[in-house]
Amino acid sequence: MVRELDVECREVGLRDGIQIVKTFVPTQEKIRWIREEVAAGMPNMQVCSFVPPKLLPQFSDAIDVAKAALEQDGLWVSALTPNLRGAETALAVGVHEIDFMNSVSETHSQSNGRRSTAQALAEFKRVVALRDSLPEGKRFKLAGGFATSFGCSFEGHVPHKNVLKSVENFVKAGVDEVVIADTVGYGNPRDVKSLFKKVIDNFGDDVMVGAHFHDTRGLGLANVYAALEAGCRRFDASLAGLGGCPFAPNATGNIVMEDLVFLLEGAGLHTGIDVDKLLPIRDIITDNLPDEPLHGTYAKAGAPKGFPWASTNSTQE
Amino acid sequence: MVRELDVECREVGLRDGIQIVKTFVPTQEKIRWIREEVAAGMPNMQVCSFVPPKLLPQFSDAIDVAKAALEQDGLWVSALTPNLRGAETALAVGVHEIDFMNSVSETHSQSNGRRSTAQALAEFKRVVALRDSLPEGKRFKLAGGFATSFGCSFEGHVPHKNVLKSVENFVKAGVDEVVIADTVGYGNPRDVKSLFKKVIDNFGDDVMVGAHFHDTRGLGLANVYAALEAGCRRFDASLAGLGGCPFAPNATGNIVMEDLVFLLEGAGLHTGIDVDKLLPIRDIITDNLPDEPLHGTYAKAGAPKGFPWASTNSTQE
Repeated sequence: MVRELDVECREVGLRDGIQIVKTFVPTQEKIRWIREEVAAGMPNMQVCSFVPPKLLPQFSDAIDVAKAALEQDGLWVSALTPNLRGAETALAVGVHEIDFMNSVSETHSQSNGRRSTAQALAEFKRVVALRDSLPEGKRFKLAGGFATSFGCSFEGHVPHKNVLKSVENFVKAGVDEVVIADTVGYGNPRDVKSLFKKVIDNFGDDVMVGAHFHDTRGLGLANVYAALEAGCRRFDASLAGLGGCPFAPNATGNIVMEDLVFLLEGAGLHTGIDVDKLLPIRDIITDNLPDEPLHGTYAKAGAPKGFPWASTNSTQE
Repeated sequence: MVRELDVECREVGLRDGIQIVKTFVPTQEKIRWIREEVAAGMPNMQVCSFVPPKLLPQFSDAIDVAKAALEQDGLWVSALTPNLRGAETALAVGVHEIDFMNSVSETHSQSNGRRSTAQALAEFKRVVALRDSLPEGKRFKLAGGFATSFGCSFEGHVPHKNVLKSVENFVKAGVDEVVIADTVGYGNPRDVKSLFKKVIDNFGDDVMVGAHFHDTRGLGLANVYAALEAGCRRFDASLAGLGGCPFAPNATGNIVMEDLVFLLEGAGLHTGIDVDKLLPIRDIITDNLPDEPLHGTYAKAGAPKGFPWASTNSTQE
């Protein structure tokens, strides 16, 4: 019998991680990455972005990668898209989940997506209509990603009420899950706990609430713990923290999957992932993207003696 | 009028940071470091260790450094020592606080201090007697540092009940403050919150409770937030995270002061420290210890737009 997960981690390295990397990662290497993470117990991967290849050539093989991911037994496959056209491709491929990107900050929406937040919402509704046109058993799960939920390099701190309004709009439109994203490391654990509480209190009965943190200013894992305290049970991260930040050239990007799993398993929360089996997969990044730094402290320091702790976990003492 | 601090940070770079560094940092440079951190608003510094110079030559100038620190207006000066002899020296110099080191783990106590935990307690009682022999207005503050409170490279996870017993022994003996230390990065935020709650619930009326976290496995700042949630209001850290770990050669040591201050100030907690004034002080490390890595994400990414947030902090929205 498979033990139910306490927390679900999602690997986003193949989407957010490689998005701004110039060197193309060969399709077979992307598939190797997926296969090896599944073998380490990863339950969920966001494997690509369905966007015009001209815009992001890194994803020109998105269809092949997504198809290969769907062949992995038990893996939940999600793909990002900003629009209906991408959703149509994703539907044709048959991914389990489509993640529709939008920004809470108006300026970031214009700069990153070349559209207003109202236009993004209108486009989202077209994707909802696409989903609802399908017979009930054949519908993809539809998630909304809320970029700049804590702050934005243009507008600074983003007020909670703006995030709550955006989420409300998507919930009313028919979203299945929302992912609150700290795109440029503006989140602070107190702020994170407060916002996640509000989102979960207001919308948690209707939709799943996930977290997507970047470690730009070092608070990524503190923010994970804060969101956990607020009741969040889904977290994005990338292997070796792959993925920088276009607005802060030297900064780190996604939180590190290995460190996230160490935090969760150390807290006695079952993730299904064997953190030590993740470590050799870092070589895929070294082999294919030798210029990208490998982040992560667990990989450097190794497991503490006796880890994973016995079932009589320290918190139960 | 000086605004009271919400949280007190203590710089330990000049003690824990340089402890295992082979290159001697010149006395005048140590004093420059102290002077510049005070100018940035640092309220408290552990400036040296009173130990035999043969054992740790890095502290052969401890008396001069401590004297210079005591000339800094408003700075709380603490010094570490493992024994009565060191405490006598510290008393002669006139530091405000003596931090008596001991280990919760028996094996670590033997390996690090070449004595049993019972012998350490007996020695501590001699330091208490020294303090109590002084007229009341002339007494130094006496803190106990509890190494390996979460785990130990020899014994693995350390049970909470062992920490509580050690702390109880010290409280009964007359300690003024206890510092719970995660010496090798075994702490997990859930575990941290649970242990700090217990220590504060049991002893918080009698003694101050501080936290000393290492970032060996990346959870240092998550643990800060967890301890903060449990009611802890004193945190150790070192500039640029200076200080490695003798048991894990590639691992990071102390949590990074700049990132700690960013976390706290971002949470609307007044530390008295201007984080941007800390950044240029990192040059003292580069100048004197060019082989030591400079840690910290705030230093790389810089302040978020609009930081520090206005007084109508996001958590109050």
